[in-house]
Amino acid sequence: MRKSNNNNNSKIKWIALGGLNEIGKNMNVFECGSDAIILDCGMAFPDDDMPGIDSVIPDITYLHKIADKIRAIVLTHGHEDHIGAIPYVLKEINVPVYGTRLTLGILKNKLTEHGILRETKLVNIEAGDTVKLGCFNVEFIHTNHSIADSVAIALHTPAGIILHTGDFKIDPTPIDGDMIDLARIGELGNKGILALMSDSTNADRPGFTMSERSIGHTFDELFDKGADKRIIIATFASNVHRVQQIINSAYTHGRKVAVSGRSMVNVLNAAIELGYMNIPKNTLIDIDEISRYPKDKLVIVTTGSQGESMSALTRMAFSIHKKINIEPTDLIIISASPIPGNEKTVANVVNELLKHGAEVVHERQDNVHVSGHACQQEQRIMLALAKPKYFIPVHGEYRHLCRHKELALQTGMESKNVFISDIGKVMELSQSGAKFVGTVPSGKVLVDGLGVGDVGNIVLRDRKHLAEDGIIIIVLTIDKSVGECVSGPDVISRGFVYVRESEDLMESIRTISADVIDDCTGGSTVNWTTLKTRIKNDVGGYLYSKTKRRPMILPIIMEV
Amino acid sequence: MRKSNNNNNSKIKWIALGGLNEIGKNMNVFECGSDAIILDCGMAFPDDDMPGIDSVIPDITYLHKIADKIRAIVLTHGHEDHIGAIPYVLKEINVPVYGTRLTLGILKNKLTEHGILRETKLVNIEAGDTVKLGCFNVEFIHTNHSIADSVAIALHTPAGIILHTGDFKIDPTPIDGDMIDLARIGELGNKGILALMSDSTNADRPGFTMSERSIGHTFDELFDKGADKRIIIATFASNVHRVQQIINSAYTHGRKVAVSGRSMVNVLNAAIELGYMNIPKNTLIDIDEISRYPKDKLVIVTTGSQGESMSALTRMAFSIHKKINIEPTDLIIISASPIPGNEKTVANVVNELLKHGAEVVHERQDNVHVSGHACQQEQRIMLALAKPKYFIPVHGEYRHLCRHKELALQTGMESKNVFISDIGKVMELSQSGAKFVGTVPSGKVLVDGLGVGDVGNIVLRDRKHLAEDGIIIIVLTIDKSVGECVSGPDVISRGFVYVRESEDLMESIRTISADVIDDCTGGSTVNWTTLKTRIKNDVGGYLYSKTKRRPMILPIIMEV
Repeated sequence: MRKSNNNNNSKIKWIALGGLNEIGKNMNVFECGSDAIILDCGMAFPDDDMPGIDSVIPDITYLHKIADKIRAIVLTHGHEDHIGAIPYVLKEINVPVYGTRLTLGILKNKLTEHGILRETKLVNIEAGDTVKLGCFNVEFIHTNHSIADSVAIALHTPAGIILHTGDFKIDPTPIDGDMIDLARIGELGNKGILALMSDSTNADRPGFTMSERSIGHTFDELFDKGADKRIIIATFASNVHRVQQIINSAYTHGRKVAVSGRSMVNVLNAAIELGYMNIPKNTLIDIDEISRYPKDKLVIVTTGSQGESMSALTRMAFSIHKKINIEPTDLIIISASPIPGNEKTVANVVNELLKHGAEVVHERQDNVHVSGHACQQEQRIMLALAKPKYFIPVHGEYRHLCRHKELALQTGMESKNVFISDIGKVMELSQSGAKFVGTVPSGKVLVDGLGVGDVGNIVLRDRKHLAEDGIIIIVLTIDKSVGECVSGPDVISRGFVYVRESEDLMESIRTISADVIDDCTGGSTVNWTTLKTRIKNDVGGYLYSKTKRRPMILPIIMEV
Repeated sequence: MRKSNNNNNSKIKWIALGGLNEIGKNMNVFECGSDAIILDCGMAFPDDDMPGIDSVIPDITYLHKIADKIRAIVLTHGHEDHIGAIPYVLKEINVPVYGTRLTLGILKNKLTEHGILRETKLVNIEAGDTVKLGCFNVEFIHTNHSIADSVAIALHTPAGIILHTGDFKIDPTPIDGDMIDLARIGELGNKGILALMSDSTNADRPGFTMSERSIGHTFDELFDKGADKRIIIATFASNVHRVQQIINSAYTHGRKVAVSGRSMVNVLNAAIELGYMNIPKNTLIDIDEISRYPKDKLVIVTTGSQGESMSALTRMAFSIHKKINIEPTDLIIISASPIPGNEKTVANVVNELLKHGAEVVHERQDNVHVSGHACQQEQRIMLALAKPKYFIPVHGEYRHLCRHKELALQTGMESKNVFISDIGKVMELSQSGAKFVGTVPSGKVLVDGLGVGDVGNIVLRDRKHLAEDGIIIIVLTIDKSVGECVSGPDVISRGFVYVRESEDLMESIRTISADVIDDCTGGSTVNWTTLKTRIKNDVGGYLYSKTKRRPMILPIIMEV
């Protein structure tokens, strides 16, 4: 029998503004009466079809509509896809932010960069805490993930308990602290959970995710095997447990550790300052000191595990790192998986490192990386412990959400109680039912340099067109008084063809344009639009017949 | 004891013009005295940093230098990365082409498209044949691969035997014909092979590649499981054995087979015509007939296994296929692995198919695909059978070549007899030694529409610049006689910012340009170069400070 003291008339609205049918920009809105809270506020990496875009954040049009109701942003952990959009949101809607110490530590760097640290209210919480935010009692529950200080969030609401796992795995032997607080989740499950929202990232992977601790053993073995080599290890800056294990292995093997890469240095400093790292004395050295130690007494921890173009490891691979030259006596360990889409860039970096004669160990070959997300067996355990009335798979592409739904059905849930939602869909949850009740504006806002949202579909379409076949500009000056072309047409191209070897083609464009101009001008009424359209069509048709390419054609008419 | 009747003074030159340190555009040149032959002549897919490029072919500058010596192009099989550059090469250097029937059958389509079928001499050979081309006796040896009629090539030269495996796997239970002719390779090995060049694609995969036949069992199981569903299977058009197995399973399960996708139809027609397919009567139906059969009596074979944007499967997924609508009762099987770089597009297609409610089975989940390339154990067998004096891993990125070298060392070869080469490097092989003796021009020639090589680094750089931040064009007309600006400056932008919402910014660009023009004009000597440079610098600096973007800035001065 399920116990419940909830008011049966109360309803909760839940809206994901990101994180469904995509990996990235996780953001949830929970509303109850005159209160609302935001759970996570992340960014996403741009897709291949968004040239020039730096990052993607959720469309928060809807937040403006409910701005008065928003009590806080509550955070599950400090990864970019959960906190990256906070500066942009706070600039528009300034509300307090609740998170664990490391999460807020990382966020502070970001707020400082955006110059809004001072006006932001940050509230440190710890796993186990509950804070009251309007009619929500927000409970933070310890979890395991690839960044320290991660929490799940249980919302105790008038309509019942909603459990959002955040990103999680079940690690019985974590590096720091305890296993995810399954006891508390079980307790809530027994009490009665209205809805569970659970991490779907690895829903297509059977079994269990390996413990982070297993990596430590791999490192020790590799350190033994590479005893006569300098060791360089690339990993995610935010994975402080991974870095801790590198430091442990280094210490055991009598090596010094130097750190390369700005984000690695920043995160590590934050983690050390906040007491998340346990660093033996005289182990960390400055990167400038490495020449003072024998190579086989060194470990260099670096960014670049994704082959990012300007990262430290990539610069080493292409011999443009100022302080580190890769040598045949180096053992390089890439302790990370390529994020989908990065496979090729990582492979390129591996190839370049190998060309220096170095030994390279990466995920495909050895156990040098484990995921931070639950696999199927852990997802089933979460479902079985939480015993939710309604289940909503989150944090995944559609294929992941579908798989996660299948797992829920395997644990005995009924299909009618499992909901696959999408961003912008409004779901109403109560003891008497769960249903979709509408939609709100949602989508992608593109960040390009300092511009937020000023690059939209038209600009992207132009960028893609320009990238495909370049641009041909045809300029002429027309004397208004007589309606005659007095200068030009001049033809300028960029990104179309190597002009010096295509003079005939350029001359033909000029001739065709001149013919059109002759045709259209001379009379008293020159129709600019017709003239432009005809130049576009005639030149475009000619170029397609000659080259099978469709550059952007831009006629410009100057008047004197 | 190795027997050899070779002339110890003879030397062979070997040059790869493609296929080393890359996957794609495989091309080898072998020279001996006044004779040369080309082994394979492929294209590569463009990288992400080559916007607008359709394909990449090898730089054949060197071939022009030795054009008189070239006796023929000999082909190992009909994949694009082995035959795709042939039309471009033949247009410049017309030599006979030798290949098996299916290889030439596929090539013929290509030559017809390029309008050069009539003037090309195509010579059909069969595995087991030897043809004399100058001083080369060229022997074709049956192999297994993911396309029928693949061969390895043994060159019997005055300097000894050189064995090039082409792409191969060892399939003891192939769909059609025999296992790779290991007996002949062993025989040559006993006779004495001077040099072995062997396929490195899967050098980082342990064990054995599964037999193509295993897929048939998977298909049968899936056909049983999905007995009440329409079945749609995407695979590579050229994998006629895979398609044969689909047809077998369909026939066994009493289903009709329809084919969708232009390349699938083309290759299948060629294969049927040449007798490579065994199709039971009344099994193949036209795609237009599918409405006449119950859905659970249909199989649709389609292109699009790589998520290619205009392929049949992608069009089905995004509901723009004219003849097939995906429904919840469809079972879709993607019988292929994503080629590196295509992971995301394939995942997108899977997500869209799932959104229609269909069931989707793809490689990660089940055994619906096997590789066409040898894994480590097969590579070791090839090495052990061929017992070459010199070993040269080919067909792979640097990391694959390195791994393959390691395997060779494991089989007992000495490091000094294993050579990792690069495109353009000239290697001299003889009974008395093997060494690098120089380089020849080599590299990438980009094909964009009808243009071959007219897009180079400058054009690509411009395209990438345009894609990143767009273009700002600033046009003005100057009256030469007085050196004054009489029209403009006008500002036009594309791909930079949504202009209607950025009028202030555009106005500032105009003002800044006007100020520069005021400054630079008016005197008797207006220096156009200075004027343009100053506009670029001032506008560029302003925009970077305002937006942190660097669009291409193009000042255009018209004179009247």
